[in-house]
Amino acid sequence: MLFLREADIRRVFSMNDAIAAYKKAFQIFSRGGSDVPLRTNIAAPKYEGQMLFMPGYVEELDCAGVKIVSVFPQNSRQGKAVVPATMLLLDATSGEVNCILDGTYVTRLRTGAATGAATAALARADASIGALLGTGGQAQAQLEAMLAVRELTEVRLCGRDYQKTVAFAERMRECLHLKRVTLRAVATAEEAVTGADVVTAVTTATKPVFDGRWLKPGAHVNAIGSYMPTMQEIDALTLQRSGKIFCESKQAALAEAGDFIVPLRAGLISAESISGDIGNLFLGRQAGRETADEITMFKSVGMAVVDIVTAQEIYLRASEAEIGVSFSF
Amino acid sequence: MLFLREADIRRVFSMNDAIAAYKKAFQIFSRGGSDVPLRTNIAAPKYEGQMLFMPGYVEELDCAGVKIVSVFPQNSRQGKAVVPATMLLLDATSGEVNCILDGTYVTRLRTGAATGAATAALARADASIGALLGTGGQAQAQLEAMLAVRELTEVRLCGRDYQKTVAFAERMRECLHLKRVTLRAVATAEEAVTGADVVTAVTTATKPVFDGRWLKPGAHVNAIGSYMPTMQEIDALTLQRSGKIFCESKQAALAEAGDFIVPLRAGLISAESISGDIGNLFLGRQAGRETADEITMFKSVGMAVVDIVTAQEIYLRASEAEIGVSFSF
Repeated sequence: MLFLREADIRRVFSMNDAIAAYKKAFQIFSRGGSDVPLRTNIAAPKYEGQMLFMPGYVEELDCAGVKIVSVFPQNSRQGKAVVPATMLLLDATSGEVNCILDGTYVTRLRTGAATGAATAALARADASIGALLGTGGQAQAQLEAMLAVRELTEVRLCGRDYQKTVAFAERMRECLHLKRVTLRAVATAEEAVTGADVVTAVTTATKPVFDGRWLKPGAHVNAIGSYMPTMQEIDALTLQRSGKIFCESKQAALAEAGDFIVPLRAGLISAESISGDIGNLFLGRQAGRETADEITMFKSVGMAVVDIVTAQEIYLRASEAEIGVSFSF
Repeated sequence: MLFLREADIRRVFSMNDAIAAYKKAFQIFSRGGSDVPLRTNIAAPKYEGQMLFMPGYVEELDCAGVKIVSVFPQNSRQGKAVVPATMLLLDATSGEVNCILDGTYVTRLRTGAATGAATAALARADASIGALLGTGGQAQAQLEAMLAVRELTEVRLCGRDYQKTVAFAERMRECLHLKRVTLRAVATAEEAVTGADVVTAVTTATKPVFDGRWLKPGAHVNAIGSYMPTMQEIDALTLQRSGKIFCESKQAALAEAGDFIVPLRAGLISAESISGDIGNLFLGRQAGRETADEITMFKSVGMAVVDIVTAQEIYLRASEAEIGVSFSF
């Protein structure tokens, strides 16, 4: 059993690797090659907590896994992670647990990779200006992913609190050792979105965080935050203006994402306007962007299949490189 | 995060501790103090395997957990465990995984403890002769548990293959350093059961392994093996002769255990003849044995609540004793 921390994972697995794993995961998903049962949710009302158990199986890669993600808002009082996560990987030829990974980092990587893979497939090739709305725990990987797939010269950063946004921009400049890219903290979403070629929203908002009118023709939008019916960060106009709207699973997104559910209920969009699953785009079964002026959109809700495929790729590389701490019972 | 192997667990946790944890678990269960959702079962038909994910939460102990148990019969070809298991424990005040335990050993301990706790509660105080039917992976802990709660002078051992039974008896004599107890390998179940005060069946049988006529008045029977509708090791006569029949959960046993389902379908017993949940006996809400001649029976199917409570007790003792290997992400 291999134990892999964030530092171990970083040594063998880049954002580009995560993007490749993400594409692979949704190609498998769209071919029907994964078995991902409903997650089990256990509430701990005593501490306002939730514990989620997300198992799944990927037959063609002979791996299975379970991600255990908890949401305990009160953890912040003790300086602990509010969303601690642990990822377990199983060898599906023998049923044995073979790897335990830092689930928080795997989540960040695969959530970033969603934006990376979708942007690579849908944004204009000449995209040069990015906008990132949200500066929380998932924001860095989103920025890294956008930069990994397009030669951006400027990325505008925008959070709810301008001072925090400035601090985030500073941290990112130090962390990412960027050349040829300007990171610009801006005070309003309008400044961020106007003129941007790639717009990524990664917030916990319950109301849209920008106005679809601000989008320039040809823009690509990644909507990463909303994963519950009560969460919404994209407005109906963005959806109406989009020529293509892809999801990880149209079925899951229609059931879970307020970004779709709210405008559908209001009769502002129809389910038919959602193009389909991004795995079909990766497989070449569906067309992506068709004109330079088309607005494209991608909606992620997070699915266990990508955690498992990502963890498996990390495990294979770490094993080969003899990275991590090994144990046996 | 603490990593605990079998050897670590043995240093801080005895069969008597496991029996105490078992009683605690079912007192909590019968008070409604646990939340144990349905387990998730994923089939891997490519390798004739099954992967089971069994999560649960015990509010009053502020712990949660998930046991991952796989059943891969083909593993024996490579000399691997056919039923590998890993147990994860969560701190339910923060949702963090705090311990990873050898799930195979936890399973053996708690399955033994079932027999220990039920025998302690139901067998005659003067029981002196035991019978153990089954010599597989769970047998040693069953034997240890019977010896832990009654002053037995003789235990008869019986498996399908007499030579294997002799070897098992020899191994147990070496392993358990027994005094004042004779372990006797016998060739037939009739030799084992006739005159025994405590009879424990722990087999994977699909047909009854002994005849209820052989039971002496006042005997106590532990039925540990059958946990699926297609499995049966106890005959209808044993149930008919039993004055009390306790289960971990009557509802679960009626849904899962062939020991009950087969005779119920044949109209040989009624559901009313099953006394109830053993947690209620431990809580003093229901009466146990009422006469010296009454035959009593206990049926276990295995429930996640006891894995979690057992793992939590082990974790607390190991942490205090600074046993095990500690990690953090």
